Amino acid sequence: MITLEPIGWVRGGRSDPLDDDWGKEQAVIELAPGFPQSALAGLETFSHAEIIFFFNKVAEAKIETGARHPRGNPDWPLVGIFAQRGKNRPNRLGLCTCRILGVDGRGLHVQGLDAIDGTPVLDIKPVMREFLPREPVSQPDWATELMKGYW
Amino acid sequence: MITLEPIGWVRGGRSDPLDDDWGKEQAVIELAPGFPQSALAGLETFSHAEIIFFFNKVAEAKIETGARHPRGNPDWPLVGIFAQRGKNRPNRLGLCTCRILGVDGRGLHVQGLDAIDGTPVLDIKPVMREFLPREPVSQPDWATELMKGYW
Repeated sequence: MITLEPIGWVRGGRSDPLDDDWGKEQAVIELAPGFPQSALAGLETFSHAEIIFFFNKVAEAKIETGARHPRGNPDWPLVGIFAQRGKNRPNRLGLCTCRILGVDGRGLHVQGLDAIDGTPVLDIKPVMREFLPREPVSQPDWATELMKGYW
Repeated sequence: MITLEPIGWVRGGRSDPLDDDWGKEQAVIELAPGFPQSALAGLETFSHAEIIFFFNKVAEAKIETGARHPRGNPDWPLVGIFAQRGKNRPNRLGLCTCRILGVDGRGLHVQGLDAIDGTPVLDIKPVMREFLPREPVSQPDWATELMKGYW
């Protein structure tokens, strides 16, 4: 068992977890009280950050541990929960690369974070281009189709 | 408080957490007993996966919550723990994009995962190119320098 505590919370952005159109959403990640402002120092020198967050609105009973059709769409193949990014997943961890708009005191302003208002944030990491895929990226057609309206 | 359980473990690869030269390391992520093999179904149709793991060898006393020099190097600026990717971080979450070599029963074979043998894995997500940064990526010079020998 591994016990984590939120390092902050998402403030603002949308309050309903709709599937698509996340690209224009702006929000602030506000540090938890235990952290000094200096925890964010220098983040504004990066263009992007990876945010690991907790899907706290997903009921345990909804968690899928095997395979399912992405978004329940029978036109897409039955694939394992670890071959898709849906929220009803073991450990309920979300992960999103978003644009850094700026740091303002204890708040990190971001755009394109696919987490709703009030979401607990577990980590913030700067995107370094060396951590992006170092070979060409390939993916199945269903994933490309699913992502069409996402941002 | 958020409680997580490993969904698997890293088997193979190096056993010492050295800083550099991770690119050629190959390892297997073995599913925890509670998961069916179908949890990995279809992952082989993606070229890359993002692995979220737990730095279980980091002592709580080593966790940095404010700012520090990356790798303790005084030539690099004092930046917040959330503006760097070092392991001595709140919640001790690691995150790496690695190449998928194949799925074999309950094992996911990967290359370039910067986690040592025995590391608890908390999530596996397929890389969809739409989730990569959608704008040009920029970063400070110290990050580029630090990453020179990483892979």
